[in-house]
Amino acid sequence: MHFLLAKPLVEELKKTLSKEVETLKSIHKKTPKLAVVLVGNNPASVIYTNKKGEMAKSLGIEHETVVLSENPSPKEVKNTIQKLNIDNSVDAILIQRPLPRHFPEEDVLYWIDPRKDVDAFHPEQVGRLSLGLPCFKPCTPQGILELLHYYQFQPAYKLACVVGRSSIVGKPMAQLLLQENATVIQCHSKTLNLEAMTSQADLLIVAAGLKGLITADHVKKDAIVVDVGIHREGKRKISGDVCFDEVSKKALAITPVPGGVGPMTIMMLMKNTIQAAKLHI
Amino acid sequence: MHFLLAKPLVEELKKTLSKEVETLKSIHKKTPKLAVVLVGNNPASVIYTNKKGEMAKSLGIEHETVVLSENPSPKEVKNTIQKLNIDNSVDAILIQRPLPRHFPEEDVLYWIDPRKDVDAFHPEQVGRLSLGLPCFKPCTPQGILELLHYYQFQPAYKLACVVGRSSIVGKPMAQLLLQENATVIQCHSKTLNLEAMTSQADLLIVAAGLKGLITADHVKKDAIVVDVGIHREGKRKISGDVCFDEVSKKALAITPVPGGVGPMTIMMLMKNTIQAAKLHI
Repeated sequence: MHFLLAKPLVEELKKTLSKEVETLKSIHKKTPKLAVVLVGNNPASVIYTNKKGEMAKSLGIEHETVVLSENPSPKEVKNTIQKLNIDNSVDAILIQRPLPRHFPEEDVLYWIDPRKDVDAFHPEQVGRLSLGLPCFKPCTPQGILELLHYYQFQPAYKLACVVGRSSIVGKPMAQLLLQENATVIQCHSKTLNLEAMTSQADLLIVAAGLKGLITADHVKKDAIVVDVGIHREGKRKISGDVCFDEVSKKALAITPVPGGVGPMTIMMLMKNTIQAAKLHI
Repeated sequence: MHFLLAKPLVEELKKTLSKEVETLKSIHKKTPKLAVVLVGNNPASVIYTNKKGEMAKSLGIEHETVVLSENPSPKEVKNTIQKLNIDNSVDAILIQRPLPRHFPEEDVLYWIDPRKDVDAFHPEQVGRLSLGLPCFKPCTPQGILELLHYYQFQPAYKLACVVGRSSIVGKPMAQLLLQENATVIQCHSKTLNLEAMTSQADLLIVAAGLKGLITADHVKKDAIVVDVGIHREGKRKISGDVCFDEVSKKALAITPVPGGVGPMTIMMLMKNTIQAAKLHI
């Protein structure tokens, strides 16, 4: 049994990304800069935003958090982003989610210039991904693939099953697996016989957002299992969409929660920021 | 056994679309107009372009074919399309494929204004489809869904298998099926055990481009089978990706080739053209 721990890859990525930043600075006189727009003061959002800032700083990436705490209108947020779009010193922009409910989600997807859209939420980016054109790859699915590659698991020719069809994880995950020549089953809340689908998969990726959804019965012997879920139980314990104890006995490899997929997402955000900076040299 | 013949639906669509055109003309003083750009004089392309023109005419849609036969440069074609983009009388534009090989396919996708892009090839349209936002739906997959609905087959809760992953059929088909709450298996040329996948499907959609790929052994008893393939054998006979004779004995329903999917595609082009015209009133 292999535990697909993010930590060794994260350490490696920190080194390579720092070097890339160093090269951009010394050869191209370009310091990559990430701007995070934080609306309101949701405590979890503040924590996530700070984490992104700290990681950026540790890699030599410049970082700015634009805090709009006084209940701003969508127009004010849009104006702020438009200033960042035309600011040549800013390479990458993201809006920390969730936004207040009254924000027009469809419009928001268009606010960030696609060339700075490191979360890859802009419809044009989503389309480019589906078409297999060069683009920013959504951070979580990209992080999962890098983690699999790092541990020498290649999706090509495998039967992969993705549980979940969100725009952030499930759908782009299926697209990326398809591009790597996996055969892909996409399951979701309306799948009638989930176990019949998941139990066939050589590679099972679970992004359903339901604690403990996947038991040992759902998993093929010697499958590779990736758990995208994060659920807090009480103050300390964090668990995923997969019943780790029983599934880990049956799987060939499994990502732990925490310490698996989560840390990869932020690293891919840094990678995309550096990619964006390269577009601007 | 049901034969999913396009004809009765095509006749119905002709009536409803003609009425819509009539309403646009009488109430909104708007005549929908489709412009087709034909590069070179490939005989098949000329035939397809003529067919589109005839269908448009029969529905009261204005139609223009811009023929660029003298080996035009990509820049010339782009300029032609830009004129159509800003021409307020033109609601819908398509470029007849295939284009000459030296045309930069990625650039071409961006030439047509997304609001006039009735083939839905623009990356923004592709992204909007994946995100479930209002958009033009690619003609062939949309036509398949309308055909299924017409014969009272709903994809929801079914296990669907799509064979093929092209940007024109396979990928958008999977997206649309997912939106209708089917569970979707996407297979392709790198799928190791195709039969094990296809034979599970309640709804099997074959867009592989390989004559006779799907035999009775590939099909679950009482499955619904949709054949997107078109292969010419000699002068008269046309067949599909599915071995019709043997599969039709096992399936609950099947589209014939010709007379199944093919005629739906052009009707959906007309539907998208009217949708585009509505954007411009």
